[in-house]
Amino acid sequence: MEIREAADEDWPAVWPFFRRIMAAGETFTYPVDLAEDEARGWWLLRPPNRTVVAVDADTGTVVGSAKMNNNQHGNGSHVASASYLVDPDHGGRGVGRALVLDSLDWAGAAGFRGMQFNAVVETNRHAVRLYERLGFRIVGTVPGAFRHPVEGYVGLHVMFKEL
Amino acid sequence: MEIREAADEDWPAVWPFFRRIMAAGETFTYPVDLAEDEARGWWLLRPPNRTVVAVDADTGTVVGSAKMNNNQHGNGSHVASASYLVDPDHGGRGVGRALVLDSLDWAGAAGFRGMQFNAVVETNRHAVRLYERLGFRIVGTVPGAFRHPVEGYVGLHVMFKEL
Repeated sequence: MEIREAADEDWPAVWPFFRRIMAAGETFTYPVDLAEDEARGWWLLRPPNRTVVAVDADTGTVVGSAKMNNNQHGNGSHVASASYLVDPDHGGRGVGRALVLDSLDWAGAAGFRGMQFNAVVETNRHAVRLYERLGFRIVGTVPGAFRHPVEGYVGLHVMFKEL
Repeated sequence: MEIREAADEDWPAVWPFFRRIMAAGETFTYPVDLAEDEARGWWLLRPPNRTVVAVDADTGTVVGSAKMNNNQHGNGSHVASASYLVDPDHGGRGVGRALVLDSLDWAGAAGFRGMQFNAVVETNRHAVRLYERLGFRIVGTVPGAFRHPVEGYVGLHVMFKEL
C-alpha cells in the first residue's frame, strides 16, 4: 500500500466511501448527507494542512484517505488533529493503521507537539483500540454526545498522544 | 445588565475588547492577530446559531458578548458549545455569569442535550470556577495543549454540562 498526497483528481475515488461512511452515521460527527461539493471542501485540505490517499499498490485503487491539520489556532496551534476514512470494502488490511502512522509522521515532522482527536465514537471500538495501540490515551469521554443509529446515545472520547 | 441578540451594528463595540483579549493570548485558541473582517465572521453567528451582547443598563455600553452554536454536526449535533468575551474594563460585575446563563437558557430552549466547552485554558481559573459553579465538570484535560505567554505550556480542559 502506498500513502501519497491527495490531488483534486483523487476526489471521485474518495467520494463513494466518504458518502457511504457518513450515511451510515456511526463513526463521524459530520452531516450524514453532506453535498458532494461541500464534502470535498471539508476533506481536501490545502497546505500547511494536508490530505492523503492510501492506494493499493497492485490495483491502483484508492482504499482510504486521511486529512490532518492544526486542532486549534493561535496559542493552541501546536497540537495537530486528523481524521481517517477506510473504504469498508477494504477493511481489515491495515489501511487505517497506515494512515494513522502517516499522519503522526507528518505531525512530528511539521513540529507539532501532540495529536488530538476531538470526537472518537466510543462504540467505534476498532478505531479506539487501534489508536490506543499506537500510543493514544483517552483524555476524557463526553457522555451521550453521539447519537448512534443503532446503539443510541453513546460517548465521544477525546484522545491524545504526545509527539 | 441586559443581554440581547447582537446586530451587525454592535460589532464596532465588540471589536476593541475582542482584539484586546485575543492579543493578550491567555484565554482563547484563536489567532492572536485575527484581522477585523475575519474576526467578525468568526464571532457574529447566523441562525440557528446565535451571538448576543451584554449591555450596561445605565450607560448602554456593550460590556461583553457570547456566541453559541452546535458543537458537532450530524449525530453529534445535539450538544451545544459557546464562547464568552467580557471587556476587561468591566470585569468582576457578573457579566460572564450572565452570558453563560443566557447561553444555557438558549441551548435548553433549542433542544440541545448538553453544553460542551472544547478548550478551556486551565490557568483561566476564574472561568473554570465559574463554569464549575454553574454545573459544568471537567471531562478531561489535554496536557500542554495551550502555550500561555506567561505560564508556558498548560492544559486545555474539555468541560461539559448536561441540559
